[in-house]
Amino acid sequence: MRNIDAVLEQVDANLSASVDKFMRFLAFPSVSSQPEGKKGIGACAEWLRFELDSLGLEARIISTNGHPIVMGKSLPENGGLRVLLYGHYDVQPAEPLDAWTAPPFEPEFRDEDSLRRIYARGASDSKSQVWSVIEALRAWKETEGAIPVDVTVLLEGEEETGSPSLPAFVDEYRDELACDVAFISDSDMWSPTRPAITTRLKGLLHEKITIVAPNSDLHSGQFGNVAVNPLRVLTKVLASIHDDRGRVTIDGFYDGVSPLPTALREQWGTLDPGEALAGVSVTGGPDEGGHGAVELMWARPGIDFNGIVGGNTGPGERSVLPSSASARLSFRLVAEQRPEHIRAIFRSFVENRLPPGCRVEFEGTGGNAAVSVNEASPYMMATARALDAEWPERTLIKGTGGTVPLVELLTDRLGVDCIVTGFILADDAIHAPNERYDVERLRKGIRSWARILSELRDEKGRSLS
Amino acid sequence: MRNIDAVLEQVDANLSASVDKFMRFLAFPSVSSQPEGKKGIGACAEWLRFELDSLGLEARIISTNGHPIVMGKSLPENGGLRVLLYGHYDVQPAEPLDAWTAPPFEPEFRDEDSLRRIYARGASDSKSQVWSVIEALRAWKETEGAIPVDVTVLLEGEEETGSPSLPAFVDEYRDELACDVAFISDSDMWSPTRPAITTRLKGLLHEKITIVAPNSDLHSGQFGNVAVNPLRVLTKVLASIHDDRGRVTIDGFYDGVSPLPTALREQWGTLDPGEALAGVSVTGGPDEGGHGAVELMWARPGIDFNGIVGGNTGPGERSVLPSSASARLSFRLVAEQRPEHIRAIFRSFVENRLPPGCRVEFEGTGGNAAVSVNEASPYMMATARALDAEWPERTLIKGTGGTVPLVELLTDRLGVDCIVTGFILADDAIHAPNERYDVERLRKGIRSWARILSELRDEKGRSLS
Repeated sequence: MRNIDAVLEQVDANLSASVDKFMRFLAFPSVSSQPEGKKGIGACAEWLRFELDSLGLEARIISTNGHPIVMGKSLPENGGLRVLLYGHYDVQPAEPLDAWTAPPFEPEFRDEDSLRRIYARGASDSKSQVWSVIEALRAWKETEGAIPVDVTVLLEGEEETGSPSLPAFVDEYRDELACDVAFISDSDMWSPTRPAITTRLKGLLHEKITIVAPNSDLHSGQFGNVAVNPLRVLTKVLASIHDDRGRVTIDGFYDGVSPLPTALREQWGTLDPGEALAGVSVTGGPDEGGHGAVELMWARPGIDFNGIVGGNTGPGERSVLPSSASARLSFRLVAEQRPEHIRAIFRSFVENRLPPGCRVEFEGTGGNAAVSVNEASPYMMATARALDAEWPERTLIKGTGGTVPLVELLTDRLGVDCIVTGFILADDAIHAPNERYDVERLRKGIRSWARILSELRDEKGRSLS
Repeated sequence: MRNIDAVLEQVDANLSASVDKFMRFLAFPSVSSQPEGKKGIGACAEWLRFELDSLGLEARIISTNGHPIVMGKSLPENGGLRVLLYGHYDVQPAEPLDAWTAPPFEPEFRDEDSLRRIYARGASDSKSQVWSVIEALRAWKETEGAIPVDVTVLLEGEEETGSPSLPAFVDEYRDELACDVAFISDSDMWSPTRPAITTRLKGLLHEKITIVAPNSDLHSGQFGNVAVNPLRVLTKVLASIHDDRGRVTIDGFYDGVSPLPTALREQWGTLDPGEALAGVSVTGGPDEGGHGAVELMWARPGIDFNGIVGGNTGPGERSVLPSSASARLSFRLVAEQRPEHIRAIFRSFVENRLPPGCRVEFEGTGGNAAVSVNEASPYMMATARALDAEWPERTLIKGTGGTVPLVELLTDRLGVDCIVTGFILADDAIHAPNERYDVERLRKGIRSWARILSELRDEKGRSLS
C-alpha cells in the first residue's frame, strides 16, 4: 500500500472527529470588520494556535496593528520542499440577521439535496478551506508520523477587510516565510465534480463617497424645487458611471486592459457558464457585449455599488431633503490597471459631476492590483495531478472575480509562485445569509490536500534526482 | 378704548402664562408617523381637550381609525359668523436625534440674535400656530367674556402623515363643521416683518419603490459583472426622472400645468427670493429655466427623493450585491395635475425602465390635488386688514410648496373658502433637527388672531347692515 492510500484511509476514518472540530471552529464569531468581532477573533486565534501545536508544529500568535496572525512551522526543518500554506479565519459580517433561518454562529446540520449540509457564517468562506488543510496535515502526521514536506501554516484574521496588516507582516517575517511554493487555500471549484486552480485574480479597491449639500436638512415641500438635493446628485453621479450596457464610462478606466489571449478565450468558451453560476440568474445583468459570462467574471474589470444610504430610511414618510447622502463602491481590476490611478480618475470623475455648492467626501480603502500566476510551474502541475486523482473531472485552470491580496504580496515580496485552489461552490451563499458547506466536500477537500502534499514531495524528489 | 385694544392688552399682559403653557404643549412627543408616538399623541389630545374646555367651548376627543381629533365648539351658538379654525398637534419625527443640541421634546429657551427662541420639535410646525389661535380665543374670553364669533376649533393628529382619517371625519361631522369661512393656521410669513396669506397650495403624493433582483444577496466579486445589481437599477431609474436642468422627464407629467398668470408673475417678480429662502442656499439646485425661485417654490410641480437605502450601510466594507434596494419619493403637484394619474404614469415610467428579471414593488400613500383659494372673498380681505394692522409690512398673497390636505377637503365638501395663514419662517428648521420659534412671534401671532376675530365680526356686521 502506497503511503498516500493509508493517509486517505486515515482521513476517512477520522472524518467524524474532523467534522466535530469544524463545528467548534464555526462557532467563533470572528467578524473582522466590526468592533464587536474582536473578542471572537481573539478566541478563534487561540483555538487555532492550539490545533497547530497538536500537529507538532511550532505554533504562535503574532500581534499586528489589527487582528492577530496564527503561524505554525515544521521544526526542525527536514530539508524537504518548503511549502507555505495560507488561509484566513476571519469572516464577513452576518447581517442582515433576520434573513438567517438559524443563528449564524450556531452551526447547524441540515440534510437536503442528498447532502449533509452545515449552515453557519464562514462555513464555506473560508473556515472549511482552512480546516481542510489542517486535517490533511493531521492525517499525514497520524499515519506516517510526519508531514511529508516542510510547512509554514499562515492563518490571517483580516482577509475580509482587505488584509491591512499583511504587507508589514510579510516584510518583517520574510525569512520565516521563505519557501519554494506558496498555496492559498481560499477559492472555488468550477462545479461540484470539477476542481480548479485559479491563476487570474482581480485587484480590488473600495471607495465610499458622501455628497454634502450647502444646507442642513430641509423641508422638501418648501425647498424641493430650488435647493440642491444630495440624493438627486448622488443618483445622477452613480448612474453616469456605467452606460446602458454596463460598460464603465470613466475616461481611462480600460487603459491597459488587453483582449483575452485567443487560446484562453477558446478554452473558456467551451465551458457552460451555468455551472459556475449555480442557479444565480444573469437575466438583466450587465453585458458589455461580446465577452460572455465566464470572461466577464474572470477577466473583465468592473465597478459595483455595494451600499447606498441617505434621507428617510423609514418607518413612515418624512418630507425631507437630507443634507448628505452616501454610497459605497468596489472596483474589481484586471491586468495592468493600477489601483491608485483608478482611484484618482474615479475621484476626478465624481468631482467633475458635482453641481456648484455641493462637495464630496471620499473614504478610500483597499488597493490591490490584479495578479496572474505562472500556469507552467511544476508545482502547479503537481497540484493539478493531485486534484485530478481525487475528483471525477479534470482540473480547470481558471480566473476569478474575487481578490486575495496575499497572492500579489507573496508573488512580489517572496518571489515564489502562488497556487490558489479550494473547494467553495457558487451556491454556498458566501458573504450572504445562510452560508453553507457540506460534509462530503469537506472530506474530499481534506483528501485533496493530503494528495497535494504527496505530489509535492514526489515532485521535489524528481527535481533532486 | 375699542374692545380690540383691550383684548390686545390682555394678550400682552398674559404672555408669560401663555408661554409657560406653550412649553408644556411642546413637551408631548406627539409624533404621528411612528408607532411609539401613539402615547404622546393621546396625552397631547387629552391636554388640548382640557384647554379648549377652559375657553368655555364644548370640547371633546373624537376617535378615528388613526389618531384622535380634538374639537371645541361655541355653545350655545349666538347667531354670529360661523368660523372653523383648524390646526394640527402632531409633529414630524425628530430623527436624527444626535443632530439636536438639546432633546427635541424637552423645550429649551435660548437667547440669540436679539430673540428669545424656543427649541423643540413642533415649536414652529405646528404647535405655535395652534397655540396662537387658542390664546387669542382666551384673550377675548377673558376681556369681553365671550368670543366675538361662533367658532369650531378642529385640531388634527395626522397632518404629518397625510391626514388619512380626515376625509371620513369631515363627511361624518359635516353638519357640526358647517361654517361661513374656514381658517387653516399652519403656514408661513414672507419675512419676519411681512405677514402672508397662502392662496395656492401644492398637492402631494408619496411613493416608495423597491427594486427586487432575481437573486438573493450575492458576492459582488463573484457576480458583480454578470448578475443584475438592484442598486445600479435603482440609481439608473431615479437619475432618469429629471433631466440635467431638473425638469421631470415623465411623459405627461406637466399636462394641465399652465403658465402663471401675468399679473401674479409680475407681483411675485418684485419679491426678493432671498427673503423667503432665509439663508437656504439654492446654488446648484434644480433650475427648469426661466421660472425664478419664487415661482418654482409656489407654482411649479416637482418630484423629489426623500430617502434611499440598500446594501451595506456600514460600518465596514461588504462585497455584496444586495437582493433589493428602495427609495422614497414625494410628488408636489399644481393646478390640474390629478394625483392618481400622476401615480399611474410614474409607475409605468419605472416599470418600463426595469431590466428583465427585476421586479418593482410600489407602496403609495397620500394623494391630494393642488388647491387655489378665492383671493377676492370679503373674509380674505378682512384677514388681510387684521394682519396689516399688526405687522410692519403689507400682507402678501402668496403660494407655497407645502400641502395642507384639509384645504381641498373643506373647499370641496363644506363649500366654503379656506383662508390659510400663519407665522412660520423659513429658518425655523421645520422637519429638521433643532426646530425653533420665538416668543415675540408667538405674541404677535396671538395678537394677529385676536385682530382677525375682531375684523370677522365687523365684516359680518357690515354684511348684515
